[in-house]
Amino acid sequence: MLNPADDAFARTLSDALPEGTVARAADRYLEEPRGKGITPAALLARPRSTAEVARIVHACAAARVGIVPWGGGTGLVMGQVKPLGPAPLILSLDRMTRVQAVHPRENVIVVDAGAALADVRAAAEGADRLFPLSLASEGTASIGGNLATNAGGVNVLRYGNARDLCLGLEAVLPDGSVLNGLTRLRKDNTGYDLRNLLIGSEGTLGVITAAALKLFPRPSGVGTAFFTVPGPGAALELLARAQAMTFGGVTSFELIHRQGLLFLDECLPDLRQPFEVRPEWMALVEIGLPEGLSPERIMADLFEQAHAAGLVGDGVIAGSLAQRQAFWALREALPEGNRRIGAVSSHDISLPLSEIEGFLAEAPARIASIGDLRINCFGHLGDGNLHYNVFPPRGQRAADLRHLAPLIMDCVHAMVTARGGSISAEHGIGRLKVEELERYGNATKLAAMRSIKAALDPVGIMNPGAVLRMG
Amino acid sequence: MLNPADDAFARTLSDALPEGTVARAADRYLEEPRGKGITPAALLARPRSTAEVARIVHACAAARVGIVPWGGGTGLVMGQVKPLGPAPLILSLDRMTRVQAVHPRENVIVVDAGAALADVRAAAEGADRLFPLSLASEGTASIGGNLATNAGGVNVLRYGNARDLCLGLEAVLPDGSVLNGLTRLRKDNTGYDLRNLLIGSEGTLGVITAAALKLFPRPSGVGTAFFTVPGPGAALELLARAQAMTFGGVTSFELIHRQGLLFLDECLPDLRQPFEVRPEWMALVEIGLPEGLSPERIMADLFEQAHAAGLVGDGVIAGSLAQRQAFWALREALPEGNRRIGAVSSHDISLPLSEIEGFLAEAPARIASIGDLRINCFGHLGDGNLHYNVFPPRGQRAADLRHLAPLIMDCVHAMVTARGGSISAEHGIGRLKVEELERYGNATKLAAMRSIKAALDPVGIMNPGAVLRMG
Repeated sequence: MLNPADDAFARTLSDALPEGTVARAADRYLEEPRGKGITPAALLARPRSTAEVARIVHACAAARVGIVPWGGGTGLVMGQVKPLGPAPLILSLDRMTRVQAVHPRENVIVVDAGAALADVRAAAEGADRLFPLSLASEGTASIGGNLATNAGGVNVLRYGNARDLCLGLEAVLPDGSVLNGLTRLRKDNTGYDLRNLLIGSEGTLGVITAAALKLFPRPSGVGTAFFTVPGPGAALELLARAQAMTFGGVTSFELIHRQGLLFLDECLPDLRQPFEVRPEWMALVEIGLPEGLSPERIMADLFEQAHAAGLVGDGVIAGSLAQRQAFWALREALPEGNRRIGAVSSHDISLPLSEIEGFLAEAPARIASIGDLRINCFGHLGDGNLHYNVFPPRGQRAADLRHLAPLIMDCVHAMVTARGGSISAEHGIGRLKVEELERYGNATKLAAMRSIKAALDPVGIMNPGAVLRMG
Repeated sequence: MLNPADDAFARTLSDALPEGTVARAADRYLEEPRGKGITPAALLARPRSTAEVARIVHACAAARVGIVPWGGGTGLVMGQVKPLGPAPLILSLDRMTRVQAVHPRENVIVVDAGAALADVRAAAEGADRLFPLSLASEGTASIGGNLATNAGGVNVLRYGNARDLCLGLEAVLPDGSVLNGLTRLRKDNTGYDLRNLLIGSEGTLGVITAAALKLFPRPSGVGTAFFTVPGPGAALELLARAQAMTFGGVTSFELIHRQGLLFLDECLPDLRQPFEVRPEWMALVEIGLPEGLSPERIMADLFEQAHAAGLVGDGVIAGSLAQRQAFWALREALPEGNRRIGAVSSHDISLPLSEIEGFLAEAPARIASIGDLRINCFGHLGDGNLHYNVFPPRGQRAADLRHLAPLIMDCVHAMVTARGGSISAEHGIGRLKVEELERYGNATKLAAMRSIKAALDPVGIMNPGAVLRMG
């Protein structure tokens, strides 16, 4: 059993650290941005160095006090809030934000875990390189949080998830020891892959304190376009053609359903939309190209080929940086539209690519059998990752249909599982989906996870209750 | 303590499995191809299905019999032979070689772990796709072994190591339970990354029985060239330019030192070499390009630019598939030349890219202080991975200089470690480098590895003595 981070513990911890490191946690550390839950009370530690993190973790292990690691606080599955059990220590890395080094020739950047993702991207750009991880909350989200949750975003198709972008990690393990794995190596087969074990473990196996990350050359040319497509199957065929034409140069391929555009019409009517008549389906396609090729030309070729094959209807190709940005502004506004309308139930799912068409054909009727509901489906089609969100009919509020939420979620997750998909593609498990994981997860995998958790964190202090139910 | 796979156990196991599954191990399962060590005696099981693998592992766990998983037997660090301790069961997957399915539209292939790497590559090619993992022993090496050892090879620069190419795994864990993780998903954040924990664990945490692997579109054009370079620093700068020109389209970048070419002159004099005067350093560069670009033209542009900058001296660009194959035949002959000369000590090292020049400048004098020796350095420069091998002087045999081997290895590994490098870049630890790992590895990492091993394999039956010393 864990003990609360009480006044006595606060005094002990304060005495071991420089003044100003430990305090009562202010509200902003206790709340989840979408109001899904709060940490009722907590102690807050804001260390300045890995050595201080180690001292804090060590003290918590000794006193059996739970730790909630805190990055930017933007997680969507309650990994950063702990509503139940003894008051934890919130361990924020928001004072550890340095870009330690950029190695352009190596295509490597080394950063403190508290650095904001946007700052990592900017530092890379300053060295004429690309750090491709990109997502809506990148101004606030920390790179340590991105790694702890194996964040995805809009460039996974070409560059992979957060884990694929990490060469080395420094982390403090649950006993307070420091894992010095901040290697800048592309190849290193010296033992078990602890880096990937920590990445995606959502703070339950240790605290990531720094990372060495991959950089990439920036494309010489970038092409961005909206294409209307008759359906998801045609969109996948369009993607395959784009990949073949560009030797895997498609960096983003986002599917958007009409419902999302209608939500924007309703909530953000000033936002410029590419097609006067809102299409049932459209795709936002971005490609990166080497020297010697014109992005606009390649996009036009792609459109022509695809149009001749019946894969696209209409298209708009960005002709300037401003237009590209406007295209992306529309894409990034979709979650905001969703927020304003208010979902009854949201799902971050992934499917094998060839199951997507069948799922999207099957799901609406199943949802309709639960109630009169609106569905907005959008997402990273190239990764098989859909945000499949269900909303009340016009004129009703989500709050009035809360009782349908579990039915809807079961319905979606059962369909997804039957098709070999995942009930959490990029957001993780946190505390929100612990029961879902128990229900849909693989029993052998869960047993192995519990063994590993018990081996590395026998007291259970690291982010207690996240991913795995407390023992 | 483990028990031997004795006659009584053989009978018990035989009774539980179809006839012909269990036998005494023939010599080819007991030997390591380079004569580094043998398994004195062993039982052999050759199951036909994952269910049979599970039954075998379960029986071994119950009887406390060690298991040596056996793929193609091509490993270079004695992961597949067990010279010491009780006779093990060799678990060969060479009857489980099916390509289960190819999904070209998903860019996924699903294979049994016993399939030869070359067969996986051929199946992908049959669907007009690329499975990029490629290495000299691919005709014999099994994909399960490649994954268990996180194999590297010549295409890592663009496509990553074996782990980067794997979407899902099926494996039998040390208690005989089956981990059904054969997912075809690009994104799946449902719990700890057991896939990557198993990959690279060299059979010490479970037996990989099947895998879902990534496929890629094939490049529209491929360019291949040899360039002479003044030194490794210039080679790295050449690489950076090639990457920038092609938007990361460099698929291979191999550095070759004159010594390797002279070995070929000595041992394989009929092999055609690209440069009449053997250059001190040369690079084999391969690029993949999208439609609309001529590989020969891009290579010529690269040569011109790099020549003007003093980064290359001479160059030969392949003008046909036959020429490309001849270029690669030279590259692949280098290990054969090494074998025929006979190394005193071989090293599979990696370094941060910006440390390579310094290392290669420093090392020869250090080696010379040990004795009159020849050095052949070649490898995957783009990955920072060098095969840094040390040979006797002309007229002497490696066998006569064996006493120098530990001194040379210490010297190389100490320099590599001081520069933040790895003492095993792509070959793994096996049994050959267990002591090296203990000496140069991170104590915190080793402690965590031991905890995980004990948690998942409490009896210690899985590849006992590999990676970690037997408890």
